[in-house]
Amino acid sequence: MKDFNYYAPTQVAFGRKAEQATGRLVKQYGGTKVLVHYGGKSAERSGLLDAVCHALEAEHLPYVKLGGVVPNPRLSKVHEGIDLCRAEGVDFILAIGGGSVIDSAKAISMGVTYEGDVWDFFTHKAEVDTCLPLGAMLTLPAAGSEMSDATVITNEDGDLKKDYGSDKLRCKFAVMNPERTFTLPPYQTAAGVVDIIMHTLERYFSHDDDMTVTDSIAESLIRTVQDSAFKVLQQPDNYLHRAQIMWASSLSHNGLTGCGTTSDWATHFLEHELSGMFDVTHGAGLAAVWGSWARYVYLENPTRFAQFAVNAMGVRNNFKSAEETALAGIEALERFFRAIGMPTSIHELIGREITDEEIREMSRKCSYDGTHSIGGFKVLNREDMEHIYRAAR
Amino acid sequence: MKDFNYYAPTQVAFGRKAEQATGRLVKQYGGTKVLVHYGGKSAERSGLLDAVCHALEAEHLPYVKLGGVVPNPRLSKVHEGIDLCRAEGVDFILAIGGGSVIDSAKAISMGVTYEGDVWDFFTHKAEVDTCLPLGAMLTLPAAGSEMSDATVITNEDGDLKKDYGSDKLRCKFAVMNPERTFTLPPYQTAAGVVDIIMHTLERYFSHDDDMTVTDSIAESLIRTVQDSAFKVLQQPDNYLHRAQIMWASSLSHNGLTGCGTTSDWATHFLEHELSGMFDVTHGAGLAAVWGSWARYVYLENPTRFAQFAVNAMGVRNNFKSAEETALAGIEALERFFRAIGMPTSIHELIGREITDEEIREMSRKCSYDGTHSIGGFKVLNREDMEHIYRAAR
Repeated sequence: MKDFNYYAPTQVAFGRKAEQATGRLVKQYGGTKVLVHYGGKSAERSGLLDAVCHALEAEHLPYVKLGGVVPNPRLSKVHEGIDLCRAEGVDFILAIGGGSVIDSAKAISMGVTYEGDVWDFFTHKAEVDTCLPLGAMLTLPAAGSEMSDATVITNEDGDLKKDYGSDKLRCKFAVMNPERTFTLPPYQTAAGVVDIIMHTLERYFSHDDDMTVTDSIAESLIRTVQDSAFKVLQQPDNYLHRAQIMWASSLSHNGLTGCGTTSDWATHFLEHELSGMFDVTHGAGLAAVWGSWARYVYLENPTRFAQFAVNAMGVRNNFKSAEETALAGIEALERFFRAIGMPTSIHELIGREITDEEIREMSRKCSYDGTHSIGGFKVLNREDMEHIYRAAR
Repeated sequence: MKDFNYYAPTQVAFGRKAEQATGRLVKQYGGTKVLVHYGGKSAERSGLLDAVCHALEAEHLPYVKLGGVVPNPRLSKVHEGIDLCRAEGVDFILAIGGGSVIDSAKAISMGVTYEGDVWDFFTHKAEVDTCLPLGAMLTLPAAGSEMSDATVITNEDGDLKKDYGSDKLRCKFAVMNPERTFTLPPYQTAAGVVDIIMHTLERYFSHDDDMTVTDSIAESLIRTVQDSAFKVLQQPDNYLHRAQIMWASSLSHNGLTGCGTTSDWATHFLEHELSGMFDVTHGAGLAAVWGSWARYVYLENPTRFAQFAVNAMGVRNNFKSAEETALAGIEALERFFRAIGMPTSIHELIGREITDEEIREMSRKCSYDGTHSIGGFKVLNREDMEHIYRAAR
């Protein structure tokens, strides 16, 4: 096991009518002028936006609204938010949405107090010093941004999708009402479940593979969200299983599932290029490449993949061959992805064959022109990336 | 499932040489004058006290020391600490020890800024408003106080052992180096493991029993610490298993295992009277009464006890009788307690038969003269308490 730091200070209010707590929580964390940041029409139509605004008004908290955040959130919207916060004297950002909105809010929060361009953080030209406090009202369990230290932003100028992480970006609070996810379409629900599983697996596939207290939490989360995914796809208004997916989304990405392990993140980096180039749903992109990544790397530590197969996927152990058990586990997760309507190849994801040129371009970007490698379980260079993309095509 | 709040803001630094981080962390959280609070001679003999003091000196942080905290920490020591902090202008408290030292530090931290007697908090006469920030260097994994909101103090005037809880009492940081637990005696190690298991079970035995994501984490923790307990009792310097017990102690009491459930705490309250009267080790006291509590209450929800038996204790399910599976699970945990040298009756705990008068006196105190009940799984009044103590005698 590896030494670790664990820091998940976000205060969680979870349950029916939880959105009523937003005003009180903003006040508790010192907000006096709020940016209410959200996505498209669904927050307006569902009445959630109004409910949150009423909760702010009940605490006499003035606010300005900025909607229009799209999946794979754009740098231009972040710039718009930064300008608005400065013009209006905003001192607290409240995100209503899923990972895209929360990530956009995080980028705004560090951009407001920074003199240069906020993109500097994503290109490693700057480190965040101070930022505006922020909170989240979660509507899409997937990215885990509500408790994570990370933000991912797409720069339209070059289709660059890059991430940045700092403990200073962790939300002060996260408000979660599973009822607010009843209307999520099946595809978004399923893509969210993939993202949750992948946040756990990116930390699980590690050569620091002896800490059973962390492993068994990770394996439990993966088993639970699989069961709950089938339930909510059949019954979209099943509160209990919506709740389990929602809470699992936070636990899978707040650091808990990585205590003592070395993280990998290769699948995430490979996917960032896919959604940067094709604007696909992140979770679906992860499902499309994960199996190809797994088959490319599993021989680095077949027993780890065998443990995953048995403990997380319910595969029967082949005591004579860890390799065969490992492969059965990879197949089992791909089978699960297909069963919930997720793609397991790039052509299913984007609706056509990907070209060799596109594969080369994604690998070039992902490797920063061949100067960076990715992955902890197996270190992958530009050629490895091309191989995995081709296997997933 | 029940609505819940989750808030575990404590920053954890975990690993070999972790104690070197204490100075940096005190500074990060604004400390400029530190009370170093600790227990007996072991912190001095082991060199840990010196190591922590050096870490403070490296950050140019002045400090005063106050040792002598005993198990079932005393109110008189808390008063001594409050006076010392006021006299010396202390603005940060650093506890080096286990639950007793950390609980004592928490009580000091709320007493320093309170005009009345700190005991007022424990008798529900006051609520904490502000308190000094505090951090912990953990040496005994058991109480989980390093991430919990709770403190338990014994008032020598009447042998009253009472608890108080507030999010304001949560440590800013907790530093954990499993190597620092290699020298723990077997009895303390085992009693700690009981405490960890009981912190999980007090939240697990709930009629809100449908949230599998929480259940499976709880069941995982219980299985892991049982395995690790046997390992470290055979090999006291087994880093991995000392680490698993240590991390489990924090996770079992930081709220994670109670998300969505209603807590019980009856066994803890019953035990507080035992250690208040006989000054026994808390974990051993829990082991002595738990089985009698469990047999008294399990028929309230036999399927919950059956789930515990199968998922946490590895008992084979009797599909025809949840009651029989439940009883087999209770027996299995008692067998585990005995296997690690813990008592499963009060006479094993205190070395003699307890008298009827003592049972009546403990029940009187525990029920505040019959005016309070305890327990969430089954509500227990004064007569119920007497029954359980008698069954455990």
